[in-house]
This record gives sequence, C-alpha cells and structure tokens, in this order.
Amino acid sequence: MDRRNFLIKSAATGATALFMPEIVKAAMLESESASAVKKYNLTKGDVILFQGDSITDAGRSRNDTGPNTQSSFGSGYVLFTAASILANHPAKDLKLYNRGISGNKVFQLAERWEKDCLELKPDILSILIGVNDFWHTKTGNYDGTITTYANDFQHLISTTKSALPKIKIVILEPFIIHGGTALDNTWENAFAPYRTAAKKVATDNNLIFVPLQSIFNEALKHAQADYWGKDGVHPSMAGAQLIAQAWLKTAL
Amino acid sequence: MDRRNFLIKSAATGATALFMPEIVKAAMLESESASAVKKYNLTKGDVILFQGDSITDAGRSRNDTGPNTQSSFGSGYVLFTAASILANHPAKDLKLYNRGISGNKVFQLAERWEKDCLELKPDILSILIGVNDFWHTKTGNYDGTITTYANDFQHLISTTKSALPKIKIVILEPFIIHGGTALDNTWENAFAPYRTAAKKVATDNNLIFVPLQSIFNEALKHAQADYWGKDGVHPSMAGAQLIAQAWLKTAL
Repeated sequence: MDRRNFLIKSAATGATALFMPEIVKAAMLESESASAVKKYNLTKGDVILFQGDSITDAGRSRNDTGPNTQSSFGSGYVLFTAASILANHPAKDLKLYNRGISGNKVFQLAERWEKDCLELKPDILSILIGVNDFWHTKTGNYDGTITTYANDFQHLISTTKSALPKIKIVILEPFIIHGGTALDNTWENAFAPYRTAAKKVATDNNLIFVPLQSIFNEALKHAQADYWGKDGVHPSMAGAQLIAQAWLKTAL
Repeated sequence: MDRRNFLIKSAATGATALFMPEIVKAAMLESESASAVKKYNLTKGDVILFQGDSITDAGRSRNDTGPNTQSSFGSGYVLFTAASILANHPAKDLKLYNRGISGNKVFQLAERWEKDCLELKPDILSILIGVNDFWHTKTGNYDGTITTYANDFQHLISTTKSALPKIKIVILEPFIIHGGTALDNTWENAFAPYRTAAKKVATDNNLIFVPLQSIFNEALKHAQADYWGKDGVHPSMAGAQLIAQAWLKTAL
C-alpha cells in the first residue's frame, strides 16, 4: 500500500480516533477558554516543570529528583503527560521535573518557590493548585480565604515572570469530581470562586488555561465519580490520563 | 467561538498534532503489515488481557491481580495503553488485566495458559513474546530453537482459538533496540527469524500485528538506544509510551 492510499484508508476507518480523546474534545468545544492563548512551542533544551499539590505529586519519589525519570514523575497526570512529551519529542533534549507536594496550598508553593521553581529555570511551568486552599478551611485549621488564594496566586505569577521573563506558564483549573465521597453539598458553590480566580490569573497574565472542570463535567456524562476519582478530589488512573490529554491538547 | 470556527482553528494551528505520534505514524507508513487486518471494535463488558514477558510485566504487583488497577498494570506499556483505553471508553465497563511474567518464553506462557488466559475469558488478547526465546539460548541453559518458538507460538494461538472461538488477538512484534548494551552483533541476524515467525503467526491466523521493530527503527532516527531502552531489550518510559501509541493506533 502506498503512502497516499494508506492515508485515505486511515481517514476512512478512523485510524486516529483514539488519539483525539472524545471527552477532552467535547469539553474544549464548550469551553471558551480553550483557545484564548496560542499554544506553546517546544524548543531544544526546554525545561518543563510541573508544580502543585497531591494531584501533581501522586506519590513521586523524594529521592529521585529527576529529570525525566519515571519514579520522579509519580503515578499521576504528570507521568502520563511527561511520557507522551518524551515519546513525541525525542530529539529536543527536554528536561521534565515534577515538584508537586501533597497538601500544598498556594502560599506553600510560594515558600519553596526559589528552590523548587526559580532555580530550575523552567521554560514551561505548569501549575495546578487550589483544592487545599478551600478544603483545609473545612478540615484543618487553615483560615485563608478566596482573596488570600487569588492574591497569593497572582503574586506567585508576578514573582515568577520577574525572575524568568520568557517563561511560558500553564494554569490548570482546580476542579472537583461531582459525587466524590470527600465532597459535601457545600463544595459546589463554595469552591467555584477558586476556579474563577485561577482562570482570572490565567486571563490577566495571558497564560494557557486548561479547563479541567469542564473536562470532568463532560467525563461524568459517561461514568460516575468512582471511575474518575473516588473521593472527588484525587483523580483515578483514568482521571489522570484525562488531565494529561487535556494538558497536551491545550498547551502544546 | 462557535464549534465550526474552533475546528477550523484547531486544524490550522495543528491542535491535534500531539495525538498523532509522528514516529508511530512514520513507521506505519513504511510497514506493509499495519493495515492488513481490520481494527477491532470494543464491545461493552469486553475483557482485555495483556500477556508476555518482562516488557509486559514491568514490575506489576503480584498481590493486586486487577482488573483496571494501576499497580496490577505495572509501569510499562500496559499501563500507558490501559490508561488510555480506560480514559477513552468510560461507558464500556471494560476489564483490563496484565499477566506478563518476567523471563517468560512462549512455552512458559503455554504452561500457565489455562489459569492466566483461558479462565479470564479475554475478548481481546495481546501477546508480546519472543526476546527470551532467543536471549536465553545465549545467556541461560535454554536449548529451544526458532522452530520451537514458531511451533509453540502457533500451537498457543490454536489452543486459544479453540477454547475461545470469538477471541480477537493482537500480536506485538518482538523487537530489539539497536545499540542497546545487552546486545552484541550476533543479535541483528539471529533474532530476525523470531520477528518473522511472530509476524507469520499473525498473518496465518488473520490477527492484528503491531510492527514494533519498525517503530523502534524509526525512533532511533531521532534519539539513541539510551533514550528508548538502554539495554536494547527493555524499553524506557518513552519507549513504553511508543509501544502504547503503536498498540492503540494499530489495534483499536
């Protein structure tokens, strides 16, 4: 079969269907934010840093600081995102790091930012933060408010852009998976402002925004919370894969 | 932005580029085998079983027998393949199992086939086997030949089809990553017949065949063996992701 006929046959039989994830595609079509900022280009030698809380951490090794090693990525969306990037860009000499830490709120990112972000000099920085900024006001002794979160987040971005003027930043929307066991009925309304604040940080600073709440809302049309993340906060393997697909489709 | 404009913009900016892996695509174009058999459809409730040696095993838990759990999948291509399938087919109630065991040759699959395949009643069975059938003749006390491998492999498929007449089988080509540290210069010629035999099993039985040698040969144009699988036998994370992409693109 020659090249032309193969391509025609591929198109006819939907050969690439699995590489265009239906849930992510559908959510993107409904989300105005998906295409607001031009995708980032990868340049040879780029450093990509993933930052966040337990969803990003996902059990990554504390002994293996990476870059590019499987145990340093943990077992969540960073692993799936990073493995795809490495497989698809073998000649680019990329260096990928995960520095997510379980339980972190945005002010805790700020406390370790010099060491865990600026010193790594990322060309692309991905941040998913926010669920603990709300959750810990209910379960812990944390008294930060939505204003704390919004101001701290904007300050973190300003600091980062001052230190690394050419940095390209990806903001992942903090999300909940409706129906999860850790959620009560106060979450829906009370957590929404955190999502809005994260999106505002992205918009105000002209950053890529990955609309994860839309993704998971779409996903819940196909299977329940149990499938995507039992407690409604921490994604399952399928949920993590969905985040990776959304990240890749939105950012690169 | 309305749906139509989004799609146009997506096409123009290459929005889906990352979901059409270049290496896999290029290798498929060169491989006559890629489109010989029609892709398999997934049906609700399907059981998918991955079988093989250490490349399939990839450190999977022996306590967690699955289905659909991350530790039961291990950390290799089964994890990446399964996570994608689960994320993309949430409503299908699929059950995915990994039963690869490190060091296995094809006769050792046969020894445990009743328990580790037939009893699970897979609708789709994926098999990657062969590298130890050759390797252990050099490093161990194994005296099987290429004829042993070819006959045992065909016999395994016949047994399986007799027990489960509707089964759909995916044969993954055993491969080497040229330049790997465990390979010497006898491998190139001496291992080739094993690849040919695996392909013949696929062709003779009208099974999907995933041309992994073509995939890795293409990959080596972009980065060296160290990047895809240091010892030339066991794929790295990027190599495992490449196998997953090839599996998904070829089989479903």
